[in-house]
Amino acid sequence: MATIKDVAKEAGVSIATASRVINNAPHTSDAAIVAVKEAMAKLGYRPNATARALVNKSSNAIGVLVNDVSAPFFGTMVKAIDTIANEQGKQLLIGSGYHDAVKERNAINMLLDSQCESLVVHSKGMTDAELTSLADDIPGLVVINRVVPNMASRCIALDNRKGSYIATEHLIRNGHRHIGYLCSNHDIEDAHDRREGYLDALRDNSIEIREEYIEYGEPDETGGEQAIVNLLAKNTPVTAIATYNDYMAAGCMTLLQENGINIPEHMSVIGFDDGHIARYIYPRLTTIRYPIQVMANEAVKLSLQLVAGQEMERSECKLFMPILVRRASVGSNPK
Amino acid sequence: MATIKDVAKEAGVSIATASRVINNAPHTSDAAIVAVKEAMAKLGYRPNATARALVNKSSNAIGVLVNDVSAPFFGTMVKAIDTIANEQGKQLLIGSGYHDAVKERNAINMLLDSQCESLVVHSKGMTDAELTSLADDIPGLVVINRVVPNMASRCIALDNRKGSYIATEHLIRNGHRHIGYLCSNHDIEDAHDRREGYLDALRDNSIEIREEYIEYGEPDETGGEQAIVNLLAKNTPVTAIATYNDYMAAGCMTLLQENGINIPEHMSVIGFDDGHIARYIYPRLTTIRYPIQVMANEAVKLSLQLVAGQEMERSECKLFMPILVRRASVGSNPK
Repeated sequence: MATIKDVAKEAGVSIATASRVINNAPHTSDAAIVAVKEAMAKLGYRPNATARALVNKSSNAIGVLVNDVSAPFFGTMVKAIDTIANEQGKQLLIGSGYHDAVKERNAINMLLDSQCESLVVHSKGMTDAELTSLADDIPGLVVINRVVPNMASRCIALDNRKGSYIATEHLIRNGHRHIGYLCSNHDIEDAHDRREGYLDALRDNSIEIREEYIEYGEPDETGGEQAIVNLLAKNTPVTAIATYNDYMAAGCMTLLQENGINIPEHMSVIGFDDGHIARYIYPRLTTIRYPIQVMANEAVKLSLQLVAGQEMERSECKLFMPILVRRASVGSNPK
Repeated sequence: MATIKDVAKEAGVSIATASRVINNAPHTSDAAIVAVKEAMAKLGYRPNATARALVNKSSNAIGVLVNDVSAPFFGTMVKAIDTIANEQGKQLLIGSGYHDAVKERNAINMLLDSQCESLVVHSKGMTDAELTSLADDIPGLVVINRVVPNMASRCIALDNRKGSYIATEHLIRNGHRHIGYLCSNHDIEDAHDRREGYLDALRDNSIEIREEYIEYGEPDETGGEQAIVNLLAKNTPVTAIATYNDYMAAGCMTLLQENGINIPEHMSVIGFDDGHIARYIYPRLTTIRYPIQVMANEAVKLSLQLVAGQEMERSECKLFMPILVRRASVGSNPK
């Protein structure tokens, strides 16, 4: 049966133009109308086929819910998914949820309205129950960067607590005993888990936990600046700082250097994520690698398998392990 | 007339489930099938309405073609468009063209297949002729960051040459006479225009142009590092460096500082774009502001106006002006 593509080709116009003629939309030239109608007659094309094609096209898009596409972390995640989508001849649709339950829900609804069968969801606002219920309705829904117990086999996550543990332990191994922590002020699992990892490492090394060494801020460079300003003001003997992420580390490092505190000579700083910036800020940032590309690949492949009705290979959450990436921002305790 | 949303609501299932039942897709429970069929009967819903709804939904998505969504510049652009899309209850679809004509064409075709009537296109690969021809076919197509003469009124661009002129002049006003330039090795207008702006400023200030002061690299931090390595190796009396963009500036600055060359005491560096990183690298980067958010807003509004068939207010390209943002990476000539 002839498709709209055939009609467009026969009429010598774009698919968009053919579609507009078929649907009697405005902005079509008389010449285009004549050409498209002749092509439709010649090919025996019926508009119903368009509709059917559209309906059947339902699996041609992969939907992605991110927190905020302008954050480089999500840019990297989206690109990894886009690479797979392209390989599969599929189009990517992106919604932003901004860690808010209502916005996340609206974005997912828009993706469903756009006929996405595959959905990779980075949700921090919706409850486990709501996600589980959505997953029941949408076979191709996969959750990234979160463990939802009742749908663990459809979750791709990172062991955040372990990552922060590794970071803090690296500082301890460099002789540091007074270690500050710049924590995200977002009330999400990642923030809690990473803070716990820092505390675990101190406990395991018999280092006293001091609440005054922990400061909170937005998980970006401005938050990192403000948090280190607050920490410095307390005049503590801190010689090293673990951070929630590379952005907080970057903001913290700029503020320290502007105040004549050299890194790592006077202060060691370790990040988390190993995003793009970690490699080009000065000094280059020692950090914890968050393998978001590998994880995003895994998530979209799992989603496509689920849509295709393929057997699940596992019943547990796929938990990725963070690793230490040494660069130049951590040194030995100078004291 | 009942819609698929009404059916889903009546049946107590998601729209995705209702859609799957209606289209006889796999992965639907018997309970869902019964509930949806009963709801369809009760509401007098006919599947054709789905098709019609889909067809009429053609204007519900805004398509965006970017170079690479994982580059923060495009993340910022996409976010600005997403903000407007949300206000208008529209969904964003994103394609990546990677500055390649074939990939750009494929991505645009996918966006058209997904029924985008509004298209904001950042194209560097396709020819002016092809873009003009596409624009003839697609009333809602708007070009961002490029001037295509035959469709100038549908182009939103930046005066790149002027921006680079301002940057170089700022270095000259700080007493610098030996000014290097780190140029993008991409064969696109932006690279040529920014290089020309640097040369214009030298000429207007009667400073000799020396080809050996110009180095080329990828327009990212690695390219910036390599370009400055090559420039330093020539042992020139350069005391200041203008760059293609903030990423090249950042890579250059890290390399300089690792080699004990302090910024701005020993070397001044100026960026271009005023992206996110400009504010948090050390020292904070003096740069040229590329108002991509304002421009993206303008582009999507223009596109929506065109789709709505509203009168165009202008016949020329909307050319935005870059401005200097002073921070800490430029100082007086020490010599």
